[in-house]
Parts: sequence; C-alpha cells; structure tokens
Amino acid sequence: MSNYNSTEDRVKELYHLLENKETNELSELLRRSNAADIVEFLEELTPEEALVVFRLLKKEDAVEVFAKLDSDQKENFQKGLNENEFKELLHELNFDDKVDTLEEMPAAMVQRILRSSDSDTRKLVNEYLKFPEYSAGTLMTPEFVEIKPYMTVKEALAHIKKVGNDSETVYTCYVTSPTKELLGYVSLRLIVTSRPDTRIEELMYEDVITVYTTDDQEDVAHKFQKYGFTALPVVDMTNRLVGIITVDDIMWIIEQEATEDFQRIAGTTPDEEDYSKRSPFSLAKNRIPWLMFLMISATFTSTILRSYEYVVKAVIALNMFVPMLTDSGGNAGSQASTLVIRAMATHDIEPSDWAKVVLKEITVGLICGLALGIVAFLKCFFFDKVALQVSLIVGLTIIFVVVMAKTVGALLPIVAEKLGVDPAIMASPLISTIVDSLSLIIYFNISKLILGV
Amino acid sequence: MSNYNSTEDRVKELYHLLENKETNELSELLRRSNAADIVEFLEELTPEEALVVFRLLKKEDAVEVFAKLDSDQKENFQKGLNENEFKELLHELNFDDKVDTLEEMPAAMVQRILRSSDSDTRKLVNEYLKFPEYSAGTLMTPEFVEIKPYMTVKEALAHIKKVGNDSETVYTCYVTSPTKELLGYVSLRLIVTSRPDTRIEELMYEDVITVYTTDDQEDVAHKFQKYGFTALPVVDMTNRLVGIITVDDIMWIIEQEATEDFQRIAGTTPDEEDYSKRSPFSLAKNRIPWLMFLMISATFTSTILRSYEYVVKAVIALNMFVPMLTDSGGNAGSQASTLVIRAMATHDIEPSDWAKVVLKEITVGLICGLALGIVAFLKCFFFDKVALQVSLIVGLTIIFVVVMAKTVGALLPIVAEKLGVDPAIMASPLISTIVDSLSLIIYFNISKLILGV
Repeated sequence: MSNYNSTEDRVKELYHLLENKETNELSELLRRSNAADIVEFLEELTPEEALVVFRLLKKEDAVEVFAKLDSDQKENFQKGLNENEFKELLHELNFDDKVDTLEEMPAAMVQRILRSSDSDTRKLVNEYLKFPEYSAGTLMTPEFVEIKPYMTVKEALAHIKKVGNDSETVYTCYVTSPTKELLGYVSLRLIVTSRPDTRIEELMYEDVITVYTTDDQEDVAHKFQKYGFTALPVVDMTNRLVGIITVDDIMWIIEQEATEDFQRIAGTTPDEEDYSKRSPFSLAKNRIPWLMFLMISATFTSTILRSYEYVVKAVIALNMFVPMLTDSGGNAGSQASTLVIRAMATHDIEPSDWAKVVLKEITVGLICGLALGIVAFLKCFFFDKVALQVSLIVGLTIIFVVVMAKTVGALLPIVAEKLGVDPAIMASPLISTIVDSLSLIIYFNISKLILGV
Repeated sequence: MSNYNSTEDRVKELYHLLENKETNELSELLRRSNAADIVEFLEELTPEEALVVFRLLKKEDAVEVFAKLDSDQKENFQKGLNENEFKELLHELNFDDKVDTLEEMPAAMVQRILRSSDSDTRKLVNEYLKFPEYSAGTLMTPEFVEIKPYMTVKEALAHIKKVGNDSETVYTCYVTSPTKELLGYVSLRLIVTSRPDTRIEELMYEDVITVYTTDDQEDVAHKFQKYGFTALPVVDMTNRLVGIITVDDIMWIIEQEATEDFQRIAGTTPDEEDYSKRSPFSLAKNRIPWLMFLMISATFTSTILRSYEYVVKAVIALNMFVPMLTDSGGNAGSQASTLVIRAMATHDIEPSDWAKVVLKEITVGLICGLALGIVAFLKCFFFDKVALQVSLIVGLTIIFVVVMAKTVGALLPIVAEKLGVDPAIMASPLISTIVDSLSLIIYFNISKLILGV
C-alpha cells in the first residue's frame, strides 16, 4: 500500500527515474500514479521528453492524461504522434473530452478526423460543436446509462455491467421512454440495495432536477451546489434526454467564475488562461482599456478641483486632506460594492432586493461614517493641531462621504445587473472615479458653508 | 413525469397550498420536492408555519431538510419539537450533520443529548468536536463502506446491500486491514462490472490519494478539484482510515474560500454568514477597523503634500493632476495584486515564483505605462491646453507610477504569503495607501527635475 499525500515528491521521483533512463521503473511508477499527477510531471518536461513519457503510459492512462492537458500540450502530442496513433487516442477519449479537443484544433484537421469517423459520431460531434459557448450543451456528455422502466433490477444491473465502462458515470441511471423522453432516475445505490426482481419503475424518482442544453454554465454550477448531486441530466426543449453533466467538470467552473469576477473587480478583461501561462503582452492588452478609461475619467476630478479653486485659495490647508478623503470614500465604496457583487454571484441576493440592500448600506454607512468622522476630527484638531473650523469640515465630510460611497457602492452593481451588464465591471475602479468626484463636491460645499466663502 | 427547472414556481405552488390549507395536496407536493427546494420554502415562512410544514414531511425527507437548515432555523425546530421528536431526528442524521448540529447547540443541551446516546456514538462525537476548525476532520464522516481484501465481488455486493443505506456514499468502497489501515479502494462501478467470484484484492487500486484529519479544508478542496474524485479518504497519522469526505461538502468550500478572498480584497474582515443575513451592525463592525486604519495611514499623504508644498506653489497647475495620478497608480496596482492573489489562491503560482512574477509585472507595467503616459501627455497638451512642461511631467509620471504600482502590487501579496499573512489582506486598500504615497513622491521629484525648483 502506498497512499500518497504529496504530488511534489511523486513528481521528483518520476523526474529522477527519467533522468537516469530507468525506463522500467519509470513505467511502473507511472502506472501507479494518478493522471492529474502525471499531467503535472509532463508540464515540467520539454516537448520531446513529454512525448517519450507519454508513450510509456498504458493506453487507458494515456487517454485520461491527454484529456487533462492544456491546448499547447495537446498540440505538441498531436504533432509528435503519427496520425493513426492520434486518431486511436482520440477515439478512446470520452465524448466530452473529444469535443473539447476538436474545438481547439485547426478546422482542416478536424474535418480530416471527422471524415474518418463513423457517421453517427460525426453527426453528434458536429451537433455538440454548435452549442453556445459556456452553455450546458458544451459541458455535457452523451455517455450515460439509460435504462427502461420495465426492466427489473437484475436486468438493469446486467445492462450497467455491459455499458458501464463506456459511461461517464454509472451511479445515476436515467429512465427514458421509447421516444427518449426523461421519465426519472434511479441511483445505483438504490439498485444494488433492492431485490433483484423489483421493477425500475417502482424504484425510479420522477421529480428530476434537469438543466436545458442552453442554460448558462454558471446556473448549472449553482444547481449542483444547491442540490449536492454528482450528475445532472440535460434535456432539450421537448424534454428529451440528450446528455448528462458530472460534478468533476463543475468544480472548475465554480472556481473559474470566481476568478473572472476577481479579474473584473480588478478592472481587467477576464481571461480563461492561467496567469502563469500568459505573456506580459496578453496581460497588458487586457488591462490597458480600463486603465485608459479610468485615467481619462479621473481627469474629471481635475475639472472639479479647478472649479473650486477659490475655496482652496481661501484656506490652503484644505488641500492637504483631499487624498485622505477620496481614499476613504473609495475604500468605503469598494467594501460595499465587492460584497454586493459577490452576494449576487452566489445568489445570496437578487436585483429585486435592491431597496433592502441600499437601506442596509446607508445604515452601515452611518455607523462607519460616524466612527470615522469623530476619529478624523479628534486627530486633526488635537493631534495635527489643525484649526477648529477645518477639523470640523474634515470630520463632517467623512460622514457624508462614507454614506454616499456605501450607497453608490451598493447601487451600481445592482443597476448593472438590471441593465444586463456584468456587475463586477461596476466594481472598485469605476466606483472610485464616481466616488472621488462626489467626495470632492461634498468636501468643498461643506467648506463653503462653514467658512462662508 | 414532472422534471422541474425552476425552484421559484415550486415554492409558489407550495405556498399557495399552505395558504389554502390544502394539507393533503401540500404533503403530496412536498413528497415530490427536493430537500433543497423545501429549505427555500421554509425560509419564506414564519417559525410557526415552518413547524407545521416540517411535521408534514416524511421522516427521511425531514432528516435531509433539517441537515440543510441554517442555525437559526435549527434552533427554531429544536424549540418547537418536543425533546423525543428532536432526539429521534438527531439520531437519524448523517454523522457529519449530527456533529454540525451539536456544534451549534448550547453546551448543556449537547450534554443532555449525548448522555442519552450509546457510548460509542458519544465517544465518536466528542472526538469529532475536537478537530481544529476548518480541518479535514470537521468535514469528514465515519459512515463509509469498508470492505476486506479477501472478499469476493459477490460478498462485497452483499455487504454493500446491508450497510449501503447508512453510508454517505457507496460508490467508493475502502479496503482496510484488520488494524483499520487503508490498503486501497475499489469503485462500485468496477465491482458491478466484474465477475462475482473475483477477489477484491485483485480489483483494488492501491495508490490512494488521501488527506490527513488535520489538513486545511482549502487544501482538501484543491485535491478534489485536481483529481476530480467524488470522495476522498481521511487517514490519521498512522495511516488508519478514520473517515471520508464527499464532494457535495466541498463545492461550498470552493465558493466560501473565494468569498472570503473577495471580502479581504474589499478591506473587510471575512465572515462566513451570508450578506443577506447579516445586520448593519455586524457588517459595520467588520469594516470599521480597516477603514480607520486606512484613513489614518492616508493622512501620510497629507504629510507628503505638505513637504512638497513649495513645488505646488511654483506651478499651481500641478495640483490638479494629483487625484488622476494617484487613481491611475491605485488602479494599476490593484490589477496586479488581485490577479496575483487569485493565482496564488488557485495554486497557479507559488511564492517561490516571485522573481518571475515581478519581472512579468514590470514588463506589463512598462507596456501599460507607455500607452497611458503618451495618451496623458497628448490629452494634457493638445486637448486641455496645459503648458508643455506640465504635460511632460504628467506623462512621464504616469509611466513611472504604473511600473511602480505593478511592482508593488505583485510583490506585496507574495511577501504576505511568505510571512504567513493572508495575501488578500495586502490587496487594493493597503496597496492604495502605499502606491498613493509613492506616486506623489515620484510626481513631485519629476516636477522638481523638469521645473528646476
């Protein structure tokens, strides 16, 4: 028995064997390693080394490893293997992995491969390639266990035994009518714990949670989380079962959707590729548009500063608090907006809750604003020895700025969602420009009132 | 057949039946609804109504629903049901749900319930209550299928039939030695597709991926994602199998860990409770410390502004670009820091990659900085008709500020991780203060050089 807890040690051992050309030991250790760890090992190697190692793998392992590679590596293997080897590999792939691989390949190559497939596969692949991006259709696989209501438990088990190895999962079996309509499902657990002569129709659960081929992957992920299933059936508009989605494909989506929101909140165009794999040019390309837009919109604050120049000229000390006030507004606003964006992404709140959310944030703003305003006043007056009037202006401004920032921070993402724009886009960067401008206007108007200029 | 795609419709229908007191129809529809949807329905009801509905549920549904309730609702049911009803309910819960429920209950109540449990359960519960928070130990359940290497497939199936209903999952069966040491695992798929007289030891996979009871839940979630398993075995330090963790408990953790990072990036203390369920006071309490710290640290910029007052006095127009420059620096910095934080959280990069990351961000900074600097100069000089010298100062400053901000944004989270501080804490808010100050220093020094003051 050799259960293992660390991939690093395993990869080091594999590398050591490869370097010393101990091919037999290497094959043996590869055979005992998990596909995900072999993929990590391959990532450390040169394309040539990777090809050598790949050819050492057992066929079923090679297929599993290939499915997990990123597109660059797939391309490397596609070029390194001869066409027959590659076709055979492709043939063995699960259907969803096959479609993913074909999607990434040049169109001419896809045509050549499809031409040599049987016509059923060809038709199915072509159909799958047509689903909208990020839809349930692109996630599903047609390799599921389909049973009939009139089967007995014994017959169902015999059927599972026959088709089980070509199915993505055997743990949920789907019951269909002669026209492929989804009638219900039975878990393998229930099948193996029932008497052999029980009919499937007696066991099947009829109120099935389904998704449509056109459903967005984010909604599909949310359903998996909510119901805790390991597979969900995908139906077309006429309720015919066309595929299933399994949980292992979903966990990445939960992470990926969160990553995209992080990228948007940071003011960059989201990109599916991992940070470590992206070139500085690709990163810069996704960042420049926002930086540019924000820089230009920030010049609006210059206009405001200029139009209140007479106030600053009256009391030059006011100038020194500008960055502190706009920063505090920005921080208060992005606290609110980030939390609201995340709560909407996790379906904790819906746009229809807007009044509740805004009211909550105004209350939070008042509490935070009062705490900050009092401290700011005390610090200015007693610690920094600023004049009483200016200290008062700063303290009061903080209160109004924080309440304003919280309100804007809560409202903007909700408005975005209602307009059908991604709420994360409205996050910190855009809010900071708006909040900055409003903060300055509040500051100078309070100054005018108190100073009487 | 009635597969359903929308929870809202289902909940509305249930509510309609409850309002009209059509108890029979309500029971029937409840029987046909998924536990997760019943939980959503209960959330809409008053505590009294919820109790009425809860009593209409079939026992096995009631158990499943109860496990999914939040702590307030559990408390409501605990008070509403009589002690025997409640004990029975608790008895039926899966072990991990039982521990979760007991953890949330007052200590005296826990003692009373444990006293009436059998001594094995009592011991086990007490052991579980001791695992460190957020560890694999708190996620696992001892209800797994344990088989022996000498069993045949037929014997194993008979065993699964017997214990299957009390197990969290039957789809992965764990093979153990007489001393409970984990020897390997066999999937139910392999069992049902193998010949009845095959021995388990011939089928079992020996290189098991395991987690330790003390492993952090974030690492456990990462393992699930990496290997795509639906269950992972948990072993103690002597490699004895003590429990399993199933994927349905993990999907929430992936989401929760991302949510916590969002909260930290927004400069608020993370909180597990959903936004919608938190009071304004609780929200304010988690936000004030950071706002206060940042406000006070932002006053540092006032000190910088004051010390360069003579430069501003020489050319008053410089003053107008301060917010635009600090905003651009802040935006550029938070782009870098957010992406780096996320890449570390998803294990895309490790702290040891710091040199590569910093180099990449400097390059990105140069590309972005040049693009922004040129546009800023052109806009100032041609569009805003600012003096040539000042336009030049602004353009040059932007370049340096963006490069500096990207470097700081990349370095800070990595330094934090190396120091063992959460990198997300180092995100936008803290960075903005540092970047603001450095931006001002760069701005005024470039001004001094060019203006010769």
